[in-house]
Amino acid sequence: MAGGVGSRFWPMSTPDMPKQFIDVLGVGKSLLQLTVERFSGVVPAENVWIVTSGKYHDIVREQIPQIADSHILMEPCMRNTAPCIAYVSYKIQKQCPDANIVFSPADHIVLDVNHFREVVSESLRYTEQHDAIVTLGMQPTRPETGYGYIKGDAEKASIRKVLAFKEKPNLETAQAYLADGTYFWNAGIFIWNVNTVISEFEEYEPELAERFSRLQEVFFTEREQEVIDAEFPQCRNISIDYAVMERSRKTMVYPASFGWSDLGTWGSLYTHLNLDKDANAIVGQQVNMVDCRNCVVHTPSERKVVLQGLDGYIVAESKNTLLVCRKSEEQHIKEWQN
Amino acid sequence: MAGGVGSRFWPMSTPDMPKQFIDVLGVGKSLLQLTVERFSGVVPAENVWIVTSGKYHDIVREQIPQIADSHILMEPCMRNTAPCIAYVSYKIQKQCPDANIVFSPADHIVLDVNHFREVVSESLRYTEQHDAIVTLGMQPTRPETGYGYIKGDAEKASIRKVLAFKEKPNLETAQAYLADGTYFWNAGIFIWNVNTVISEFEEYEPELAERFSRLQEVFFTEREQEVIDAEFPQCRNISIDYAVMERSRKTMVYPASFGWSDLGTWGSLYTHLNLDKDANAIVGQQVNMVDCRNCVVHTPSERKVVLQGLDGYIVAESKNTLLVCRKSEEQHIKEWQN
Repeated sequence: MAGGVGSRFWPMSTPDMPKQFIDVLGVGKSLLQLTVERFSGVVPAENVWIVTSGKYHDIVREQIPQIADSHILMEPCMRNTAPCIAYVSYKIQKQCPDANIVFSPADHIVLDVNHFREVVSESLRYTEQHDAIVTLGMQPTRPETGYGYIKGDAEKASIRKVLAFKEKPNLETAQAYLADGTYFWNAGIFIWNVNTVISEFEEYEPELAERFSRLQEVFFTEREQEVIDAEFPQCRNISIDYAVMERSRKTMVYPASFGWSDLGTWGSLYTHLNLDKDANAIVGQQVNMVDCRNCVVHTPSERKVVLQGLDGYIVAESKNTLLVCRKSEEQHIKEWQN
Repeated sequence: MAGGVGSRFWPMSTPDMPKQFIDVLGVGKSLLQLTVERFSGVVPAENVWIVTSGKYHDIVREQIPQIADSHILMEPCMRNTAPCIAYVSYKIQKQCPDANIVFSPADHIVLDVNHFREVVSESLRYTEQHDAIVTLGMQPTRPETGYGYIKGDAEKASIRKVLAFKEKPNLETAQAYLADGTYFWNAGIFIWNVNTVISEFEEYEPELAERFSRLQEVFFTEREQEVIDAEFPQCRNISIDYAVMERSRKTMVYPASFGWSDLGTWGSLYTHLNLDKDANAIVGQQVNMVDCRNCVVHTPSERKVVLQGLDGYIVAESKNTLLVCRKSEEQHIKEWQN
């Protein structure tokens, strides 16, 4: 899923070039490229599908040349995750009626890729044999208020029953979740068999199910894009969490620790970059930090930057834009853009 | 004189585009353009000469299209102001043996242009009739330690004898100069008759005088540039102040107050820009200041900028470079560039 607009990471991420297409970590690869790489050895390359917005087609094409053009699905507009998942599921089912599918956002990071692959592979083997939805639950390491939580059963099995999905908590609740030990961050990564997907849509979102079932006949024909462009905007704008997860009785959670972040904030990026001796996190090739501490800096590699006397600031540049602000104020970034 | 490299205003000013060619004030015109405009009505356009480095020829051409190409003199290397002034003086003398000449840096600002024109016109009338060098002395408004001073005679005449030139003083000395009332900032603007120039060079810098006297025969011929390229680098690197002013007995000073600055520092720019309600000085079309005070910001007009939580900082961008530093640390900017 590579259709988001990444507005929280402005100006590194912009509507023309949202964060999944950016080399956020300064490793020479975009988050999308890292996401595709992450499935290498787990999912054959010819089975990878990228769902994005039509306006990003050329960026995906350029960044992921190894994926066939027919595997880049284009949403004509943003309708959140449920219509996206319905579209690709009914499409895959037409070609491969017993597929097991991993749905993953393209703009997250995973530090321990090997462990990620083990977890996903085991989850795929599980859904081959069970009519279940496996969600990946991250072992919390701090009382994070920026994520939703999954309350799992207290049993010891690696894949266990979900008892509840929880909205982003306040700090007190997050601290209680952390202490309890059976609450996990909802990473938004789901593994299920295509028939489970479709049966759950039929049960909980019958309108979506009816629409994509009807559209199946045009999938893999030259009329597909035209029909999708006409029908997709009519879909209800709803997340898969609201549409299915919170209502389904088939949800399971696989608690795991593979160094995950949704990189939803500058602060979360800061915690995932290497720090210099003054606790600055720097992405950029020519950045000279003089008497600076606790800053996160993200600048294009060709840009020469001198920063002096800053403590606890975000400094971010894109092609046309500069942001300098205190890390503690980043929740206001959206307000300042206009 | 438009050959400087403007290293103190980095990164707004760079060796490829030094400050005389930059719209430092955000008025839509470069300092060079403002300087040429300043002489309108005082010096006929066909009598304006611009001495610059060969590498800046095209920039001058583009910014000052009204000046004939033959009036752009190109130094093959930097040799400070004395060789520059010798070159253009011997050249002008060949064409106009009784010319009165104003020498002016191209990277200063003058706020009261009408008063400037009166002062220069009166100085030119003076040098028509006197074998004298008129220097413009700025009435000091603060105990500035960044300028050299001219000690004038205490007489009341507008144009009066220079008693001494003084190096940049320490603060205590600058305070004494300010209190005394007969010390003026040396603006580096000189008015003299070409024959005065030449007689002073003959007396105090005979090697320069001999060289350019000998070269006069190639001036206004097609060999001129080639010969200058060969001979100019052999000139002694010396300022007109050391070479002539501090030794000449013909120096006069015209004390004036036309809102002058050599814009030698970011601090001096700050004092010459309009301030917003939070005492920020901003050059840039799309700058959003949030909770910022006492900053000086200089960014290209096409650049979108959001600054938050900065107090007393310089924020400057050029095409390839960003600088953020405390105003109080600007004397170190040169050290940080590499």
